[in-house]
Amino acid sequence: MIFKKGLDKITPYEPGKPIEEVKRALGLKEVYKLASNEIPFTPDYIRKAVSKEVKNINRYPEGSSFYLRKNLALKLKVKESQLVFGNGSDELITLILRATIEDNDEVIIGYPTFLVYEIQAAVCGAKIIKVPLYNLRYDLRSMAKRVTGKTKIIFIANPDNPTGTYVNQEEVRSFLKSIPKSVLVVFDEAYFEFAPSDFPKTFDFLKKRGNIVITRTFSKVYGLAGLRIGYAVTTEKIAGVLNKIREPFNINRFAQVAALAAVKNDKFMKATRTYVLREKGYLYRELKRLNVTFGKSATNFVLIDFKKDTGRLNNYLLKKGIIVRPLTGWGLKNYFRVTAGFHKENVKFIKCLASYLDGGLK
Amino acid sequence: MIFKKGLDKITPYEPGKPIEEVKRALGLKEVYKLASNEIPFTPDYIRKAVSKEVKNINRYPEGSSFYLRKNLALKLKVKESQLVFGNGSDELITLILRATIEDNDEVIIGYPTFLVYEIQAAVCGAKIIKVPLYNLRYDLRSMAKRVTGKTKIIFIANPDNPTGTYVNQEEVRSFLKSIPKSVLVVFDEAYFEFAPSDFPKTFDFLKKRGNIVITRTFSKVYGLAGLRIGYAVTTEKIAGVLNKIREPFNINRFAQVAALAAVKNDKFMKATRTYVLREKGYLYRELKRLNVTFGKSATNFVLIDFKKDTGRLNNYLLKKGIIVRPLTGWGLKNYFRVTAGFHKENVKFIKCLASYLDGGLK
Repeated sequence: MIFKKGLDKITPYEPGKPIEEVKRALGLKEVYKLASNEIPFTPDYIRKAVSKEVKNINRYPEGSSFYLRKNLALKLKVKESQLVFGNGSDELITLILRATIEDNDEVIIGYPTFLVYEIQAAVCGAKIIKVPLYNLRYDLRSMAKRVTGKTKIIFIANPDNPTGTYVNQEEVRSFLKSIPKSVLVVFDEAYFEFAPSDFPKTFDFLKKRGNIVITRTFSKVYGLAGLRIGYAVTTEKIAGVLNKIREPFNINRFAQVAALAAVKNDKFMKATRTYVLREKGYLYRELKRLNVTFGKSATNFVLIDFKKDTGRLNNYLLKKGIIVRPLTGWGLKNYFRVTAGFHKENVKFIKCLASYLDGGLK
Repeated sequence: MIFKKGLDKITPYEPGKPIEEVKRALGLKEVYKLASNEIPFTPDYIRKAVSKEVKNINRYPEGSSFYLRKNLALKLKVKESQLVFGNGSDELITLILRATIEDNDEVIIGYPTFLVYEIQAAVCGAKIIKVPLYNLRYDLRSMAKRVTGKTKIIFIANPDNPTGTYVNQEEVRSFLKSIPKSVLVVFDEAYFEFAPSDFPKTFDFLKKRGNIVITRTFSKVYGLAGLRIGYAVTTEKIAGVLNKIREPFNINRFAQVAALAAVKNDKFMKATRTYVLREKGYLYRELKRLNVTFGKSATNFVLIDFKKDTGRLNNYLLKKGIIVRPLTGWGLKNYFRVTAGFHKENVKFIKCLASYLDGGLK
């Protein structure tokens, strides 16, 4: 056997079904995808920036993401040398683990949470300590209690995926006080743009404490999921190591120009946020009307507790051309996740859910 | 210290200077890049396929690269489950190492060769056995002699970069006979499309022996370096593990559609190869005329032995707007590498090289 020990125990990540795949499998012409927390728009000015770059596809991208780095650093008020770009923020999670984990190191994660922490920590051979969420929220106190001399990293998805919950400034402040400075704390803030105002100011904590990595993405509010680009903000030292071990051309040309256009023009991002928050409000109201249990979310998706196995409902929706996200991969077989999409998509989802419930198909 | 042992000893990969960077630094309007073995063209039908995809940038790519996988498997006459796609073939090299290397495992590589093997093997904590090339060719016999009970992987860049040399069918056949089947042999064939007809039939060796990975790229003859996509062909078992541990959306949308368009239409690839081989012939003739020492190459670049430090020449060429690749990163300070570009680029390179030599600047 040429493989490392332990790889056979890993369950691979199962993505939300792509539109193309559902069209193929069910012979449908129109399919709405509310499964992967994408935003429904592609803004014109980003399309234009991307289209202009098509002539350069035969040339390697700039390895340092020069212009993007400069502009993002200015916007975030950090040094350029504090930034690391990844082929999606999941590559950054992988890089952090690859740079740090040695035999017997422990990694503390929540459960249920974003699955990539566990998969990639397992690939690196870490011992994974899973701390259950409490009322579907990160239980920071219980996580802090699990720290030992062998703890290398704690991952905090904030807001969390798939629950949509978040931990606030005060909770994080008191949590960090209880964590030895030798432990790296990673805040995965893929959805932070959708969160309320008491969301933690992690850049301040980074300044004071060091040994923190904040990961973010252009896949969500900026609408660039198809291009694959995320970024990490951390100390210059940590960023230096991550930049040294990443592949030299990990960010493709299109991702660089699209993210640059996005950074330079925040108007669209703000408009998206407003649209999404309004649509989430629509979903809340309608779900309440249908007497369906759901959680308030700090993201662009809603977690629904169906109180029974969602398998049949999920198939019903697929046949109607609506893809939601069953959460069996997280061990939550009674739950599913629905993204706030275009208004007409959300309306159709509610209509189909209602007809499923009406049909005595509960 | 939160980092793994050994990372401080790693020298990061230094890419060829991008055109944008040289323009910025030297205030030049026209810059020719002959540094990164890119092809000079972007074919129209690929541009069109990419442009059509711009509307979907807000959607995650298909995690399996469904259509591309299907079409490439057909073309290569392998099973779909034998393929792994990477964010450039350097990601595949990293994945292979991540899937296999445990403490004390040994990895055998040539020297000088593609730098990513050494960097990523070091990140994974492997013991690296460097076997010098002999007359700038891979010395397979000496590599075979270094196999021990701890050898996990042997990397063979074929053709090699930066030397441009290759090992042939007979050499590889007798090499593989001497290597225990427990050792994974990786053939990195990034440039194989440019190689002569006695190039090894590695697919046949894979069928007979198993435990072989062949990596290839769309960055070279297909001209998609800016998009980042490469592929590996191996056993179903090895492909299964690599697919399990890769990030779920490692191949962006544009890379998938561009590679699909490239696979479906080989005409352009063949035209490129013809163009490049003709231009390489031009470089050979002119270098000979200038009495400059160079090696015959099985790739789209030429390795030049300048017989003295290339630092001054390199600066001279940069000021003239020509980027070649100094090889100090490989410890070859008297050598440089020049890509066969557009004819007018190659002509200008030869003209500038001649004027440097004429000016008594030798």
